[in-house]
Amino acid sequence: MTEVAAARFGAVEAGGTKFVCLLGSSPDDIDARTRIPTGADPAATLAEVVRFFSGSAPPAAVGIASFGPVELRPGHPGYGHITSTPKPGWRDADLVGPLRAALGVPIGFDTDVAGAALGEGRWGAAQGLSTFVYMTVGTGIGAAAVIGGRPASGLGHAEMGHIAVPRQDGDRYAGRCPYHGDCLEGMAAGGAVAERFGRPGELLDGDDLRQAVLWQAGYLAEGLRTIVYTLAPERVVIGGSVAELPGLFPVLRTKLVEKLAGYGSLPEHAADDFVVPAGLGGLAGPAGALVLAENALRASAPG
Amino acid sequence: MTEVAAARFGAVEAGGTKFVCLLGSSPDDIDARTRIPTGADPAATLAEVVRFFSGSAPPAAVGIASFGPVELRPGHPGYGHITSTPKPGWRDADLVGPLRAALGVPIGFDTDVAGAALGEGRWGAAQGLSTFVYMTVGTGIGAAAVIGGRPASGLGHAEMGHIAVPRQDGDRYAGRCPYHGDCLEGMAAGGAVAERFGRPGELLDGDDLRQAVLWQAGYLAEGLRTIVYTLAPERVVIGGSVAELPGLFPVLRTKLVEKLAGYGSLPEHAADDFVVPAGLGGLAGPAGALVLAENALRASAPG
Repeated sequence: MTEVAAARFGAVEAGGTKFVCLLGSSPDDIDARTRIPTGADPAATLAEVVRFFSGSAPPAAVGIASFGPVELRPGHPGYGHITSTPKPGWRDADLVGPLRAALGVPIGFDTDVAGAALGEGRWGAAQGLSTFVYMTVGTGIGAAAVIGGRPASGLGHAEMGHIAVPRQDGDRYAGRCPYHGDCLEGMAAGGAVAERFGRPGELLDGDDLRQAVLWQAGYLAEGLRTIVYTLAPERVVIGGSVAELPGLFPVLRTKLVEKLAGYGSLPEHAADDFVVPAGLGGLAGPAGALVLAENALRASAPG
Repeated sequence: MTEVAAARFGAVEAGGTKFVCLLGSSPDDIDARTRIPTGADPAATLAEVVRFFSGSAPPAAVGIASFGPVELRPGHPGYGHITSTPKPGWRDADLVGPLRAALGVPIGFDTDVAGAALGEGRWGAAQGLSTFVYMTVGTGIGAAAVIGGRPASGLGHAEMGHIAVPRQDGDRYAGRCPYHGDCLEGMAAGGAVAERFGRPGELLDGDDLRQAVLWQAGYLAEGLRTIVYTLAPERVVIGGSVAELPGLFPVLRTKLVEKLAGYGSLPEHAADDFVVPAGLGGLAGPAGALVLAENALRASAPG
């Protein structure tokens, strides 16, 4: 068996518009990388992924961090598949099977958000922690919990963008989640910010920017209150374009303490290192796929 | 070392009014049991616990499932202590230290709710599952997640009674949580039911009972929606007196499916075995403390 420490891993961040593939061992040690458009035919897209990994030095294992929903239950007949996506052609698409068959190496598999969480845990803003949450706030809102070093999943996987959040003072926006209306994603994802103010978050300034930061911090703080009370993470790492609103983090930290209201709160929750910006940017997902590959190789090792 | 399989364990469910102590190996195999009032002096109460366990056949390990908040971080100077309780005399009380010193055996420690979760997992309504949530709805609302067989905790521990829940149609009750007002506990714990209807839940009948079931199911379903989206449990087990409202569970299951609204929901979420009543009643906590003792003994074993 290839020794884990010396191994080269393959990483696939499978997204709805592109598959980002890396070959390497860490974000600082990338031998090759490519970007493959997500076509309408999964078999053709996966064939290109296989071609990328079939070069001179094939990987010891491959990790896939995929858009979802996905089936993660080991032993389930649909394990390794994307399940009920509306994306044409990809419903019930098997990602793990074709790559395992073509490459003959262990394949790790999890959601894109769980992958990014693992990447931040290994090389980014959650290094050294065993229990933390990674949240991405962009077109949608996703979050994954790493518990004891492993992404948590059971029946399905986390969909934390869809938790309920109380309406913030003065905000009359209805919310744009097609399922829940005013859930966290419905109120605080990129489209909600843009729809409220008539322009995207990155173009806001003046009073609009100040108001957007207050509401955004308020909704995210409500989401974090629920996450603190549900998962008790050691840290929450927040990435995604909407997390880049200038001045967001200090207000968010203050509002989280307000929402906890002195119950179950610890001095650590008020510290600057409890809610932090992501450290790896767009590389978090592919980096996490490297971790998924390494975990798959370890799991396949005898003993 | 005592062999785990043959061992007799000590169990302490440390509550605000009484300490329930057992000696045995399972709920069906109890050698001795007692109930010790929770006095104003922790040292005196713990001395009685020690006396109970110092009989002819001392336990191989003791588990404590305690009222909280408690410090669970291994290596933290306050590990094994109750922390900021308002209960006179018990603030910063060390539970683990005195028992370990007096009995000289490994001591397991977790919250009372996590203990009950472990008990339900081993002998009750969550047998065979590795990722599930146990919730108790009584004077307060508490819930603990078992992830991969272990209670999840990080910075602090779960306080799921205090998550936000959207107000249910027609309910004008303000909520009675002194910290958050209308959080899950504020709207759905025993006192909220009693205050709305002028009598406790177990005495309700007719239209009041029907209305209480609808609201109670609505709030609990909102809480479970958040739990499903946050933790993706394989099952949710609900205990406590308020969960005994006649007819609650079928309405709760229907409302959970409504609240998920087709997003991230699986056929399993609608099944009768996804949200289930607890199986062990009041014995869940002491039974879980037996599991904590066994885990502590295993953790202390060489290799």
